[in-house]
Amino acid sequence: MPHIKLPEGFPGIVGPMVYSPETAKPLNELAEILLRGPNTLSPGEREMIAAYVSAQNDCYFCQTAHGAAAAHYLDGNEALVQDVKRNFEGAAVSSKLKALLAIAGKVQTGGKQVSNQDVERARAEGATDKEIHDAVLIAAAFCMYNRYVDGLATWAPTDPEVYRATGKRLAEEGYIHSTDRLSMNAGS
Amino acid sequence: MPHIKLPEGFPGIVGPMVYSPETAKPLNELAEILLRGPNTLSPGEREMIAAYVSAQNDCYFCQTAHGAAAAHYLDGNEALVQDVKRNFEGAAVSSKLKALLAIAGKVQTGGKQVSNQDVERARAEGATDKEIHDAVLIAAAFCMYNRYVDGLATWAPTDPEVYRATGKRLAEEGYIHSTDRLSMNAGS
Repeated sequence: MPHIKLPEGFPGIVGPMVYSPETAKPLNELAEILLRGPNTLSPGEREMIAAYVSAQNDCYFCQTAHGAAAAHYLDGNEALVQDVKRNFEGAAVSSKLKALLAIAGKVQTGGKQVSNQDVERARAEGATDKEIHDAVLIAAAFCMYNRYVDGLATWAPTDPEVYRATGKRLAEEGYIHSTDRLSMNAGS
Repeated sequence: MPHIKLPEGFPGIVGPMVYSPETAKPLNELAEILLRGPNTLSPGEREMIAAYVSAQNDCYFCQTAHGAAAAHYLDGNEALVQDVKRNFEGAAVSSKLKALLAIAGKVQTGGKQVSNQDVERARAEGATDKEIHDAVLIAAAFCMYNRYVDGLATWAPTDPEVYRATGKRLAEEGYIHSTDRLSMNAGS
């Protein structure tokens, strides 16, 4: 049961976004730029950072939805996304992405946890300043989204197929109008 | 020393916002709506929630800048802002604001920490669903801003007068163009 009366049938963050469209707008714009905007990190890599941070924050809806988006970009490789969430250092991803995931994990526990060594490692693996900036901000942003979702005790579906469809839609159509589309789905 | 090369002379979050204007736009729009938009919570109350959460996250720049904005709204009552940051339950603020600060504090530690009892307390003190929603999202958003500021190891001024001027400007002119104005100041 959500802590406040939200419009019914909207999963996870969509409920509060439909409830509060004026804040949903910048929240969706931020997600669109961070996860799908022009970037030397692929959308799949950025969705993996989002899914990993959401897993560290124990946010079921976000880690599953963004994990599904990452898997969609990765030709359906859900096992790799699970590997990243469980132990990214041992996962079959690039050394640069591992270094950025390590920074994201530090940000999740607190901004001051990011050390010079973490940043030097990322640079040594080829990460640019912009990529380090984006890893920090993606991690920080999901510390917000995750708390918004769970702080209001929103409802989350449990059927993996629902998340596969959500991940596909987020990957293909993006975040800006995600609330409109999901509200249409919920109403149909 | 910031972890990445940021434009020099911009304090706290302003450095990364000038570095990355495309993400600064939704970040500032969100702050403007949450802290200064039409609301039954006063801007001073909302800035106190922001300052309190930033203090819990040990973010010097954010807690000081938003504490100064709160004090500006409160006719310069900096002692009250300090009281809220140190022990809001004993501070001279309304019972409703104390209940919302308690929810914000739970969100800071993790979304799932917000209990039915926390929400019932806020309702019993007269908080509306919208006010509970906003307290949760303000707290969640500052868990992002704080991590963005500290995750990049940004520079922060230490002179209280600088923060008094910043708080006045944020209170009177808002967040949307805060980066432009601060960049002009830094360049002058």
